[in-house]
Amino acid sequence: MTQTKNILIGQSGGPTAVINSSLAGAIEAAKRTEKIGHVYGMLNGIKGYLEGRKTDLLALSEEELSLLKTTPAAYLGSCRFKLPKDMEDPLYEEIFRRLEEDEIGYVLYIGGNDSMDTADKLSAYGAKVDSDIRFIGIPKTIDNDLVGTDHTPGFGSAAKFVAAQVRQIVLDAEVYQQDAVTIVEIMGRNAGWLTASACLARKYEGDNPVMIYLPEVDFEPEEMLRQIRRRLKERSALVICVSEGIHDQDGTLVCEMSQSVAKDVFGNKQMAGCGKVLEQLIRLRLGIKVRSVELNVTQRASAVEASLTDVEEAFECGRQGVLAALEGKTGCMISMERISNDPYQLAYTAKPVGEISNEVRAVPTEWITEDLADVTEAYKTYALPLIQGESRPPMQDGLPVFLYRDLSKSKQN
Amino acid sequence: MTQTKNILIGQSGGPTAVINSSLAGAIEAAKRTEKIGHVYGMLNGIKGYLEGRKTDLLALSEEELSLLKTTPAAYLGSCRFKLPKDMEDPLYEEIFRRLEEDEIGYVLYIGGNDSMDTADKLSAYGAKVDSDIRFIGIPKTIDNDLVGTDHTPGFGSAAKFVAAQVRQIVLDAEVYQQDAVTIVEIMGRNAGWLTASACLARKYEGDNPVMIYLPEVDFEPEEMLRQIRRRLKERSALVICVSEGIHDQDGTLVCEMSQSVAKDVFGNKQMAGCGKVLEQLIRLRLGIKVRSVELNVTQRASAVEASLTDVEEAFECGRQGVLAALEGKTGCMISMERISNDPYQLAYTAKPVGEISNEVRAVPTEWITEDLADVTEAYKTYALPLIQGESRPPMQDGLPVFLYRDLSKSKQN
Repeated sequence: MTQTKNILIGQSGGPTAVINSSLAGAIEAAKRTEKIGHVYGMLNGIKGYLEGRKTDLLALSEEELSLLKTTPAAYLGSCRFKLPKDMEDPLYEEIFRRLEEDEIGYVLYIGGNDSMDTADKLSAYGAKVDSDIRFIGIPKTIDNDLVGTDHTPGFGSAAKFVAAQVRQIVLDAEVYQQDAVTIVEIMGRNAGWLTASACLARKYEGDNPVMIYLPEVDFEPEEMLRQIRRRLKERSALVICVSEGIHDQDGTLVCEMSQSVAKDVFGNKQMAGCGKVLEQLIRLRLGIKVRSVELNVTQRASAVEASLTDVEEAFECGRQGVLAALEGKTGCMISMERISNDPYQLAYTAKPVGEISNEVRAVPTEWITEDLADVTEAYKTYALPLIQGESRPPMQDGLPVFLYRDLSKSKQN
Repeated sequence: MTQTKNILIGQSGGPTAVINSSLAGAIEAAKRTEKIGHVYGMLNGIKGYLEGRKTDLLALSEEELSLLKTTPAAYLGSCRFKLPKDMEDPLYEEIFRRLEEDEIGYVLYIGGNDSMDTADKLSAYGAKVDSDIRFIGIPKTIDNDLVGTDHTPGFGSAAKFVAAQVRQIVLDAEVYQQDAVTIVEIMGRNAGWLTASACLARKYEGDNPVMIYLPEVDFEPEEMLRQIRRRLKERSALVICVSEGIHDQDGTLVCEMSQSVAKDVFGNKQMAGCGKVLEQLIRLRLGIKVRSVELNVTQRASAVEASLTDVEEAFECGRQGVLAALEGKTGCMISMERISNDPYQLAYTAKPVGEISNEVRAVPTEWITEDLADVTEAYKTYALPLIQGESRPPMQDGLPVFLYRDLSKSKQN
């Protein structure tokens, strides 16, 4: 006789376009086995679960599940919450008490670095108290900076959005006959994977964006100015893409370079992005027209232009998470291994999450060109399969339809 | 015997997602009549034409014309150039000398307010010197602020993009359980049409964005803070959309409120948008988490999420421009009149451009709610038909394919 246990799924960390697709994949797999009874979702991650907030995911209809797959952000809500290092902390006892109460046999936690840390600690505590609850981490981050996996769900869609937007920003920037620089600031504080995707925007060799700066190497403002001067001899409109995390050789972030003196009318420090700082530098030093564009949260929230490959892989990661838990694995993260690039093929495995959490995977420096202002063909070969295919949410009245919870009176409930 | 003359088409002012569709419509119509010989495009508008820069648009293949229809920005390049008021200025003689030399019978100028001013002045000069060259303006602006037309090509696509992005930004903003405000800054310095389209993002009554501020009325920072405090009692995450042009009762732009004191490390005045200024105000006064998102040029450059209705109407405006010119009209702008809203139906007419240029059409104040923080149902009824249908550029290797001119060595040619 099969013992039926319930499954609990949580989402954590920053939203992406496909974190809900992983949730949909997990629900789908959980529904197909008799070993799993209830399918619960933590509301606002482990933090919300500790407040007793959970939802019944089996209540979602087939149509709603299909919508969930193409809905961006985090349907269950998210949290930024790190579990204590001390395994004696009463929080662990409290969590496990609730898990026992809800008859949970399997916990899936979808997220980035901190979330993998959560999965790691919970499984460690589980081992300590001899619990048979299985804990599996499902990777998610547009930053693509988790070790132990070829790439992370969420990255492909963000990269596709960035590349398409940069291609369009380039066309926009080139309409006037005038020396001008457009800076595009792209997310990624510690790793330049997403910023590097701007190279995919080029339509021909030598096309804009003419320079791409990643946080993996030191940024030299004077060298950038030299490059701009040189390139302005050949074309009028330059587009330069920079990661929010670029820094000089002393480790000072470019975005921090102006905050020391800039104060606004309210007496606050002006929190400018590095794009704004470079905009001002170029204007002052070169006296030409400059503007900066910060893609901001749109690059992680745009399901309308998501990568179908990414949506499908995120779904499969969720599904594989359930299968791994059913097989008895715990303390693991679902990992994608690229078996072949042409044709593009993946294998899904489960890797010990302790080896993954709290590490940052950077763009290999051999993928950065010698002048430190571009990426090589190797990056393009790596990234191109990940942005293939169009995932289109259903449209109604001209706008995308998403699955959502009505939060208008959330504080009164 | 039909007299064959050439047609000259120019694009001017800021780019939109559909200004090239108008160009494609004009080329299409010009190819279908024997009255027109060559089809020339001014490169970089009237300014480039004065430097002798033009291109042969009949060289475009059918496939290229089809691509042109879904390519954003301005294929021919643009300019910001206002013709002199003085009709005795030798510039006019120079322009007409070139037009005669190129055997131009018809000139189409696609653009916003300043471009309509150009069409107006050229036709006035033409009348003065008894020229039979016909001058027609084709409207274009995401701002939707031209008088004499129900709306302008470019607005529908920008509105659709803004509404879709705001809907996604709202989902992103709502993932955490924490009092927080997200400000979204939207283009439109003098008219709030585009900012108002954020209301279409709402999924249910009372949904985010909870407040929308337009430049048509005075903005009262204290009143905004009161509204935020009140609404935070019901929900944690608030999204507020503001036009870049909002100002207080003295006419001071909110975006100028911080510039007087803010200086960066290079000694420049900090040019913050109004979103950043409000972000700082809210943080200082309410002590809650705030961030601001500036949609920036992406809202006018995104052909990937364009409105099919807009693309088709822009095309038709270009076509109608040629037909009007062939009928002998001059000094006119193609105008769209809404005959019926349900079903949505338009009539295309040609209106004297002198009555249109240099006027700004604002959102009617009766469409703004009494608390000055939202728009009424009337706006929604007006805007909804304009964002219908999906225009999708062809995709290759995961990215949109566009028609472009290789500008990599433009300065050496």
